[in-house]
Amino acid sequence: MIKKVKAALIIIGDEILSGRTHDANLNYIAKWLANLGIILDEVRIIPDDGKRIQDTVNSCRSVFDYVFTTGGIGPTHDDITALNVSKAFGVRFSLNKEARKLLEDSIGKQNLSDARLRMAMIPEGARLIKNPISGAPGFQIENVIVLAGIPVVMQSMLLDIENRLSRGSKITSEALHVFTGESHFAKILEEIEQSFDYLSIGSYPFNKSGSYGASFVLRSQICSEVTEAKIMLIKKIEETGTQWFSGEAPKF
Amino acid sequence: MIKKVKAALIIIGDEILSGRTHDANLNYIAKWLANLGIILDEVRIIPDDGKRIQDTVNSCRSVFDYVFTTGGIGPTHDDITALNVSKAFGVRFSLNKEARKLLEDSIGKQNLSDARLRMAMIPEGARLIKNPISGAPGFQIENVIVLAGIPVVMQSMLLDIENRLSRGSKITSEALHVFTGESHFAKILEEIEQSFDYLSIGSYPFNKSGSYGASFVLRSQICSEVTEAKIMLIKKIEETGTQWFSGEAPKF
Repeated sequence: MIKKVKAALIIIGDEILSGRTHDANLNYIAKWLANLGIILDEVRIIPDDGKRIQDTVNSCRSVFDYVFTTGGIGPTHDDITALNVSKAFGVRFSLNKEARKLLEDSIGKQNLSDARLRMAMIPEGARLIKNPISGAPGFQIENVIVLAGIPVVMQSMLLDIENRLSRGSKITSEALHVFTGESHFAKILEEIEQSFDYLSIGSYPFNKSGSYGASFVLRSQICSEVTEAKIMLIKKIEETGTQWFSGEAPKF
Repeated sequence: MIKKVKAALIIIGDEILSGRTHDANLNYIAKWLANLGIILDEVRIIPDDGKRIQDTVNSCRSVFDYVFTTGGIGPTHDDITALNVSKAFGVRFSLNKEARKLLEDSIGKQNLSDARLRMAMIPEGARLIKNPISGAPGFQIENVIVLAGIPVVMQSMLLDIENRLSRGSKITSEALHVFTGESHFAKILEEIEQSFDYLSIGSYPFNKSGSYGASFVLRSQICSEVTEAKIMLIKKIEETGTQWFSGEAPKF
């Protein structure tokens, strides 16, 4: 019996949309979720805008099992994620004693300025997510999980929530590569995909440093489908007289 | 008079959501748009799923001035973007003679297999976008611009459309950096931001290799706001006795 658990990720940050910085969390979260059997099913990157945060959180939380957000929970005026998640849920936004204690323990009571206290403001009813790196916690309210944007902090928060989440059936994935154009295998790939109930085959052409070819990625929540499909695909590729490679994609 | 032109980018690709590959187009497109005075205002990353492509294209095209898509216009069964953009617009999806000619010229008539002909299937009424790298064109239908996913091909297509797009007022951006926690400047940043009509200030903490601090990024479509705000901010930072740096963010 296959269990599907689906998540959306909302990346909040003008700096990514403007091109100033590269997002450094998406790929990490994608892999982390896949390892838990949770399917990352949509990502949205939106500006630091209160209304947009509220609307995006509300439209995603009714559709996906989990909604993760990254960014916008620091001490400055542009850190507006917690307030707007609170508004999205229509709950009070107030100083959380436990969060204040975590901050005090991490940075010292004497260093708890007004700006830093902002990081202890949490929507009512939320459960905190520990941040062993810099103290200021994330939080979870219903199925919405609010994380920091700084990668090392975000990653430390994932450790705290790993055991809270419902898990689905893990996806098994195998890749084969050929140094021939993908169009030669279009029909074969389609036929093999259609022979199985849950299997998907992705075809990803590469063209780098004068070498070109394609990677065929077989994925399914039923492991045996991938094993069988791989054998079928190898046979079909060999019938065309083409050499294939497995494992990691070729490096250039 | 400020002119705002806003765009959304839809990245279509299971392989990015699964964590198998890193997206390599977002940052390039973000910078390219910024340089044309077009604001990238939302990014959505969605799976290779027909219904999801249709729904996402339709919900974005009514809100944004331009909608760009990347990925899913190759010759294999998982290349379903063109068909589903066609369905989103409710127009016929048929073999485009001009697209077929471009393919023939690029790869030779004798190499035009059924799979490759798939790349000449274009929604009716769309205008083609040239692809000097591998022939198979992208297309524009109304405000929706459909591009390849392979970075080098995608980038070559941008050259062809650069002069078709309406441009807005460019955003001027300047950055200052300090090796002190951002919370010390929270109030100053907020006050300066509020002194201007269009200015936004982002505060981005960094913490790497034992050095920590923050980058303050001043952005506005009115250049003089950035210039004035920068002078105000430098004065305020210096009043706290903190050293500041300008230009590129510190490297580690």
